[in-house]
Amino acid sequence: MDEKALRSIVNTVVNQIKTPQDMSLEKALWLAQKVKEKASSMGVKAVVAVSNRAARPVLVECMDDSYIASYDVALQKAFTVVSLKMSTSTLKELAQPGGSLYGIQFTNEGHIVIFGGGEPLTDSAGNVIGGLGVSGGSEEQDTALARYGREIFEKGNI
Amino acid sequence: MDEKALRSIVNTVVNQIKTPQDMSLEKALWLAQKVKEKASSMGVKAVVAVSNRAARPVLVECMDDSYIASYDVALQKAFTVVSLKMSTSTLKELAQPGGSLYGIQFTNEGHIVIFGGGEPLTDSAGNVIGGLGVSGGSEEQDTALARYGREIFEKGNI
Amino acid sequence: MDEKALRSIVNTVVNQIKTPQDMSLEKALWLAQKVKEKASSMGVKAVVAVSNRAARPVLVECMDDSYIASYDVALQKAFTVVSLKMSTSTLKELAQPGGSLYGIQFTNEGHIVIFGGGEPLTDSAGNVIGGLGVSGGSEEQDTALARYGREIFEKGNI
Amino acid sequence: MDEKALRSIVNTVVNQIKTPQDMSLEKALWLAQKVKEKASSMGVKAVVAVSNRAARPVLVECMDDSYIASYDVALQKAFTVVSLKMSTSTLKELAQPGGSLYGIQFTNEGHIVIFGGGEPLTDSAGNVIGGLGVSGGSEEQDTALARYGREIFEKGNI
Repeated sequence: MDEKALRSIVNTVVNQIKTPQDMSLEKALWLAQKVKEKASSMGVKAVVAVSNRAARPVLVECMDDSYIASYDVALQKAFTVVSLKMSTSTLKELAQPGGSLYGIQFTNEGHIVIFGGGEPLTDSAGNVIGGLGVSGGSEEQDTALARYGREIFEKGNI
Repeated sequence: MDEKALRSIVNTVVNQIKTPQDMSLEKALWLAQKVKEKASSMGVKAVVAVSNRAARPVLVECMDDSYIASYDVALQKAFTVVSLKMSTSTLKELAQPGGSLYGIQFTNEGHIVIFGGGEPLTDSAGNVIGGLGVSGGSEEQDTALARYGREIFEKGNI
Repeated sequence: MDEKALRSIVNTVVNQIKTPQDMSLEKALWLAQKVKEKASSMGVKAVVAVSNRAARPVLVECMDDSYIASYDVALQKAFTVVSLKMSTSTLKELAQPGGSLYGIQFTNEGHIVIFGGGEPLTDSAGNVIGGLGVSGGSEEQDTALARYGREIFEKGNI
Repeated sequence: MDEKALRSIVNTVVNQIKTPQDMSLEKALWLAQKVKEKASSMGVKAVVAVSNRAARPVLVECMDDSYIASYDVALQKAFTVVSLKMSTSTLKELAQPGGSLYGIQFTNEGHIVIFGGGEPLTDSAGNVIGGLGVSGGSEEQDTALARYGREIFEKGNI
């Protein structure tokens, strides 16, 4: 067996047994930096929260003079998107009166946020490995910032 | 009066005075197994919760890789259906804005779930002796799974 | 290169990249069965809770006629042992007045239990991959049951 | 009076009436970086939290594989030290049974931590402008890390 064949076998094995990645503090700090730069360019003072794939917080950063309430909102957005594997914008629609998940905002001890600004973060295989929560601007701004973060994370997370 | 007639009278009296059955852990494990098999066949990773007739939890099982948020949702569905003696699908209609129970989702400290996936479980005499809560798929899937569980429980609970 | 050399290389690679195992529902059900059998033999009606390596619940089983309060206690023991990577018996000593962690029972929103009956569960490499919480007997009984569960899990978890 | 003397008087007045500085996210990130480097050198996986002079969180960073319970503990240490303007080591002594503040651990909804690892942060005039909370090692390690952070912050905060 030559080296090339061996390498191919090893790669196959590696791909089959490797488990999904998880969020690291290093990746979270990199992502928060990007989101803060974008927020500054939009005139938004944001709180940026990043959770891991167990929906546990990894990082929370509060830009100077951001809303006090935004700490909890950003943190819970980062929880919500991993615990339900969907963005808070998508959940927003499902949680309206008459929607299939109307009422989920009242269970789960207040941890579920149902307005824009939270996005799940995936690895290259499409597994949810963390969540991003942004709060501090209008809903449109928070949603745009979270989507920006999701895109840049997925590009940078090779 | 012969022995057979006497035995018949005693049985009638005993049946009338015996207290309602209650959920047992054994029955709950049996039911959860059935619901998990059905969930697997539908491609759903579910959390299955069973409560007793005091609306207290007897069993919670989280299938591998089920949603983190589903733990609270399934548990509270199993509470809701016993505490109100109706399915969460029925409650859903009553709890919409304008409905006769609109607002119940805000009381009871977040324990009341108002979307499908919770079904009360009854004994052969029709008494509610427990509740089943399922969470993990779409509302339609959770509702179907809980109804399946209710039917199979009532057939099997001789 | 012969087959033996190849196999050796593959094993080396696998060992280097494999991440710690996690608790599965199947393992948790197996463990709970063992703990319940032991509890029955001791005359204890126990609640048995198992968490995964993110300290999220995987399974809670309440034996018939167990204490209502034991549900929360067993669940939080299973959280405590993973979130602090120590048994609740060890934490008990540290959390006494004058101890290095006295007061931890008041923070963490009531999730930290500081008496016996909780044990971390490790894989063959010594990583904490879950937690076991038992409640229902005396502290000595709960502690003995949790230790029994830990030992049998580590033997069976090859 | 010449211009130089006048300028000197103006500066003195300005310095006396200017409001105390506050923690900024930039300073908090700088401080957390220093504390993380020290923690790594000690083999500790720490959660580092920084609060502002209103005792609100500015930054929380969770080093990879730090204890899950450390998030709440570090956060609440950073709250405690500003809300009481003393280190958690000092408070520890006062909060033991018989101490002058025994009982404070039961009020304030679980936000008060009474073991080492929290230090108030002051500006050059000695005003408390924020707090540092560290959790993840032994109490001795957390205490040492928080004291290190306090010293380096006060030196660097010119």
